[in-house]
Parts: sequence; structure tokens; C-alpha cells
Amino acid sequence: KVIWTLLVTILGYASSLPVGDDSICTAEELAKYSIIFTGKWSQTAFPKQYPLYRPPAQWSSMLGVTHSSDYSMWKKNEYASNGVRDFAEKGEAWVLMKEIEEAGEKIQSVHGIFSAPAISSGTGQTSTELEVHSRHPLVSFVVRIVPSPDWFVGIDSLNLCEGDQWMEEVSVDLFPYDAGTDSGFTFSSPNFATIPQDTVTEITCSSPSHPANSFYYPKLKNLPPIAQVTMVKLKKNHLGLPAPYLSVPAKSNEIIDSVS
Amino acid sequence: KVIWTLLVTILGYASSLPVGDDSICTAEELAKYSIIFTGKWSQTAFPKQYPLYRPPAQWSSMLGVTHSSDYSMWKKNEYASNGVRDFAEKGEAWVLMKEIEEAGEKIQSVHGIFSAPAISSGTGQTSTELEVHSRHPLVSFVVRIVPSPDWFVGIDSLNLCEGDQWMEEVSVDLFPYDAGTDSGFTFSSPNFATIPQDTVTEITCSSPSHPANSFYYPKLKNLPPIAQVTMVKLKKNHLGLPAPYLSVPAKSNEIIDSVS
Repeated sequence: KVIWTLLVTILGYASSLPVGDDSICTAEELAKYSIIFTGKWSQTAFPKQYPLYRPPAQWSSMLGVTHSSDYSMWKKNEYASNGVRDFAEKGEAWVLMKEIEEAGEKIQSVHGIFSAPAISSGTGQTSTELEVHSRHPLVSFVVRIVPSPDWFVGIDSLNLCEGDQWMEEVSVDLFPYDAGTDSGFTFSSPNFATIPQDTVTEITCSSPSHPANSFYYPKLKNLPPIAQVTMVKLKKNHLGLPAPYLSVPAKSNEIIDSVS
Repeated sequence: KVIWTLLVTILGYASSLPVGDDSICTAEELAKYSIIFTGKWSQTAFPKQYPLYRPPAQWSSMLGVTHSSDYSMWKKNEYASNGVRDFAEKGEAWVLMKEIEEAGEKIQSVHGIFSAPAISSGTGQTSTELEVHSRHPLVSFVVRIVPSPDWFVGIDSLNLCEGDQWMEEVSVDLFPYDAGTDSGFTFSSPNFATIPQDTVTEITCSSPSHPANSFYYPKLKNLPPIAQVTMVKLKKNHLGLPAPYLSVPAKSNEIIDSVS
């Protein structure tokens, strides 16, 4: 509960900051975190058009970056970069990795890049390690929703530093976003480029407001989270292997999240 | 050329070592490398049954580990672990990550785990960073061939340490392996468990010796490499972002590799 309160506070704070106005981080220079991604995209929670084959519901690799406020991987209501478009549409990471590399070289706004293996079902888990730096305390990542036209989940510029210390643990519920580059309405829509490109928008149970939309659930107030991410600070010299106490979520979670 | 000679020497040496008898590494304790994986699975090089859709030819995430000789991720002519089976059959990394974690905790044979994003075509590239330790100088990884029954490419226990120094650069050609857990013969064979499980075997142009095998090219002496991996030592404090000078291979490579 404390974590959640903390999180909401931090997210609220971060989103109210003017662009580029980082709070100063005076914590130790480097910190390592384990990052665990948990899919919650079950047929129980999201029965509408749930993809069962060719391909069944699953998640792409995770591609993430630790950075300063001079870099942005993606942002709600702004246009996706070519790299984010390729990743959201096809799971192809190369252009996005090049964009990150360029930001790292030209404006030194990037500390590191991280990735975690894909998940072959809607409800599995994946995990990796990341390192933040007091001048690059922000974390962003994307994971493509598979199959989908250009839909993804992710985090934009979450600050892991709180003044003079690094946060011990953070969990964030994730909801689907549309990269604004492909006009498909449903998980298995054929490719159909959005011209001109639209901005990145959150997909909700009522928007896009059209019954054909795979996430359109007019009786709901809110979609249940489709995934969750947890970052846990590692002790120095820890391996950064998957946290043993975080296992596949109990089925009961899915029932709690279910939509009927 | 020098690299190749070096590589062949080292591989020859490593494979002739008794199990568990590491050469002692007296290099600096830690070294970081950029690892770049390049798919060479083109329709020109591998025309037979080349997968064009649902899904087209592509590569899974890369999952790798740096370790001592007390750990083995996979080995030719030995049985695949459950984790390698899940990864080779479905690209599901969780069990394999748990196995690695366990080896790291119980027998401290693991230094770190690394992964790189999937590639959405047969000939793209992906990249990440890895760290080796003088007591854990070996690198192993797997990348699943998609689509396939249980086929993968990878490296088993490549030693990056040479006596008192870390190698500057290593490139290795990769060839397909069968995890021995699914009896499919072709890229798109339906699932059909191999019972009892078989060992990990290399797939060549003549083995399995059956015309239905997707890699069966009776007129060839050897298959062209289906992928290549390059590890480049990073300077201290380098970001480990994708090496800018390594770009998508020239098309001419594919023609040289082509099979007719």
C-alpha cells in the first residue's frame, strides 16, 4: 500500500513537471534494479476478440532505456518516432536502438539500454536488470502487444530517484497505447498505415468509441490493467537475476480483474 | 583474418578441454562487451520452404548468460534442459531464466544474464551488452528460429578470456540446432513431442537425412551460416549501445552465401 501511495505521488508529481525541469537527484551515483514485467492479458479479463492462434495473445521483447529528461522514448499525445513505430507495429527494435544510441552520443541523455525476452502467452512474466545514474534517473520502456496493429504498453520517464535516495520498489499498472501509425481497430486487423500519422493515445474501454475496437467494453468504467511492471532495487554486486519471490501470478488475480 | 584464426584456435582448444578444467583467467576482473547478432536467414541463402507468412522467417529474443565451466546452458549431443526446451519450442524464457538464477545462487557458477530484442525478419540485427568476470569468462546464449519445431542457434561456453587479457573482438558463424524435444521436420510442422526426448543435434544439409527436412540440400557440402554473432570489448564506462559501425549486412553477402 505504501508503495502504491508513493507511486501515485511520484507519478502525479512527474506529470505536473515542466519538460526538462528534473528534480535534482543527490542519491548515490549508480543503482541497479531488477525489472519484472507481468502480463495480465487473460481471456477472462479481456474476453473480447481474445487472440487464440496465429498468433495467440503474447508480448514482444521489452526494450527500455535509462535516461535524463533531455531524452524521451515516447510520450502520450505526441508523435511516435520511427523507432517506436517499427517496434509497436512489428516488434522490430533496431531503429529504436539506433535512436537511443544517437541520443546517448549526441546529447549524453542516455545512461543505458536494457531488454527482456518476449513472453509467449498473454499472462507470463519476463525480467531483466537495469542501471540508473543520478544524472539519468528516468526509466522508459515499451513492450508490443502481439497481435495488434501498433499497440503497446510501457512507461514514460519514471523517476527512480527521490531526492537523496533511490526508491526501493515501484509497481505500476500498465494500460494499452496506440502508437498512432496504423489504423487497425482490432488485434488482428491487416496493416493499414495512418496517414497523416496520429499521436500516441491511450486506448480505453470507451475510446476509440467504436464497437469494433478490441478494447471497447461500454459497460466498464475502466479497463483492468493489461500488464504490470515492478522494479526492485538490487543490493550492490547482486547478479540481477529474476527475483525468486516473484512468480507467475495466482489465477485468482485474473478473476479479480475479470470483465464480464 | 587474425580474429578468425584466433577464434578457430580458441574454439579448438576449448572443445579439447576436459569438462570443468578451465584455463585460468588472470585478466582484469570485469570486462564489458557489445554483442551483435546478425540474421543471415534469407530466402536467397535458404530457398527451401522459406517461411513467408504466419509467421514469416524471424528470430526470437536472445537469452544469454556469462558463467564458469560449472554451468552449461546447452551442449551438443546432451539433453536440453526444460528451460532450453521451452525456449527452443516457444521462445518462452521464464523457466530458462529460473534455471540460470538457480545455478547462480546454488553454485555461483553464473555472473550475469543478458537478453536482446527479437528480430522481425530473417536478416535483421539485434544487440545488447554483456559483462564477464575473470571467474566467469564463458558466454552462452540461445536464439530461437521462428517458425520452427524446436530449432535454435547459439553459442555454448565461448571463453572470452585469453590468459591475462580479454579478447578484443570475436565473430562466430552460427548454424541451426535441434533441441531434440519436438519431432517436426519443417519450419511449420505442427507440435509433436519427441518421446523419449532426444539430445541436442546440429542440423546440417544432409542430417536429418530426409528430403522433407527444411535444411536438406543434398547438393551442398555445408549449409551457409544462418546467422553470425560478434562480440566487441567495450571501453570502460562505455554505454554498451549498439556499435554504430555494424550495420545491416550488404546484400552482396547473401549472394555469396546463396544456395541454388
